[in-house]
Amino acid sequence: MKESTAHPIGIFDSGIGGLTVAARITRDFPEESIIYYGDTAHLPYGDKSEELIIHYCRKISEFLLEKGCKIIVIACNTASSVAYDELNKSYGKQAHFVNVVDPAVTGIASMKEVTEIGIIGTQRTISSGSYSSRLQILRPDIKVHSLATPLLAPMIEAGFYNNNISEAVIETYLSDSSLQSIQALILACTHYPLIKKQINDYYREKVKVFDSTDFISNEVGMLLANQHQRSAMKKSNNHFYVSDLTESFEKTTRLFFG
Amino acid sequence: MKESTAHPIGIFDSGIGGLTVAARITRDFPEESIIYYGDTAHLPYGDKSEELIIHYCRKISEFLLEKGCKIIVIACNTASSVAYDELNKSYGKQAHFVNVVDPAVTGIASMKEVTEIGIIGTQRTISSGSYSSRLQILRPDIKVHSLATPLLAPMIEAGFYNNNISEAVIETYLSDSSLQSIQALILACTHYPLIKKQINDYYREKVKVFDSTDFISNEVGMLLANQHQRSAMKKSNNHFYVSDLTESFEKTTRLFFG
Repeated sequence: MKESTAHPIGIFDSGIGGLTVAARITRDFPEESIIYYGDTAHLPYGDKSEELIIHYCRKISEFLLEKGCKIIVIACNTASSVAYDELNKSYGKQAHFVNVVDPAVTGIASMKEVTEIGIIGTQRTISSGSYSSRLQILRPDIKVHSLATPLLAPMIEAGFYNNNISEAVIETYLSDSSLQSIQALILACTHYPLIKKQINDYYREKVKVFDSTDFISNEVGMLLANQHQRSAMKKSNNHFYVSDLTESFEKTTRLFFG
Repeated sequence: MKESTAHPIGIFDSGIGGLTVAARITRDFPEESIIYYGDTAHLPYGDKSEELIIHYCRKISEFLLEKGCKIIVIACNTASSVAYDELNKSYGKQAHFVNVVDPAVTGIASMKEVTEIGIIGTQRTISSGSYSSRLQILRPDIKVHSLATPLLAPMIEAGFYNNNISEAVIETYLSDSSLQSIQALILACTHYPLIKKQINDYYREKVKVFDSTDFISNEVGMLLANQHQRSAMKKSNNHFYVSDLTESFEKTTRLFFG
């Protein structure tokens, strides 16, 4: 992968959630070019078979590799859990694959002061236990409190954030008894960065709030530094592809990237 | 279909929405037995191909016909739009098929005093124009204002109804400028009967609020009366089937039917 310094960072998701990851990476690494692929024709991945999800992810990865991507971020919880190992095995020599779960888990595990943590996400992410089980392996001393917050993603997709309604919904979920003694909270859904400010406002710095993009951006930064893969370009060049162009995707992309 | 008076009424949906239809029918016709089929393994139908939806609906219809159903209610907007004609052609001699759209459209069309009406539903239902286009054929003089209210169904599924949050969300949607001169509102989603009281509270009787179950129950009543198909049973006997038993379905069914 030498001399690939002008190569872009690929990011894909089944829908619009991964745009928060793309926005964060372009903010933290403005000299890097990104290629975003939203598989909107097949969303949501949540109700598809594992075989089908892996099939879609392989096709997308091959597309991103053809475009010369040096790093590929799987910005989707379902695809990360189901397809990461497979993609890494097949294409890991051509590009670095980053999933959304592992960077968060290792990031939290390294924080020795944290002994009690909350995780919020969709019903599927919480039921899968993907974050909590991996975290418990690395840090059996951490008490993990997982709470499904199923209304948050559709609420954000319907445009309800940074308003009184999202504030009330956030308050309802975060006042759950299970989350009352946590020192830190992981926002385990790529939609949630859009309500991170309101969650921080709720906690008034009493609880540290981390979202997936914090850890993914950190991981991407380390890969760029370790492999001397930083872009030598002066100006980034971003591209967005979707398998089915919807009005909502266009609107959200405009909102995030002008 | 003579001597079928002890035969049940079949009701099916891809998920839990149709339970409001089932609840209404058991309330209005307590002597009738129902068989409910929730195709939870394949929900949502919204992102499936027409061929696949028709395939699922045929299988469910055959199951309900084997159970002796005299009337089959397709309690799902997507299945009603995609599969009704097909099911009626194939099995219409064995049972009466009722979809969710036509009874509402003909019901509203018969109200001569209504000249301006609102329709709220999911993005898919509103985009499909299924209600508005059929209504405009019967009553070209009616002004129809359709508004997608995408947060309402996930809000109800997440348990947010009859509280301050649902009140605020309802108010946000219903205060939309497009709905300001309507005389009546159709709730074109089988989830919405759960927030009908709050919608009525919002309008304080200034707007007549109709939900799909009003018209479906009326249609079922006419079929039972016209065809002399009323049950002669003294006690009803209700059955619920699901293709994939989820905690949420069980909880909701308990909530509706004890």
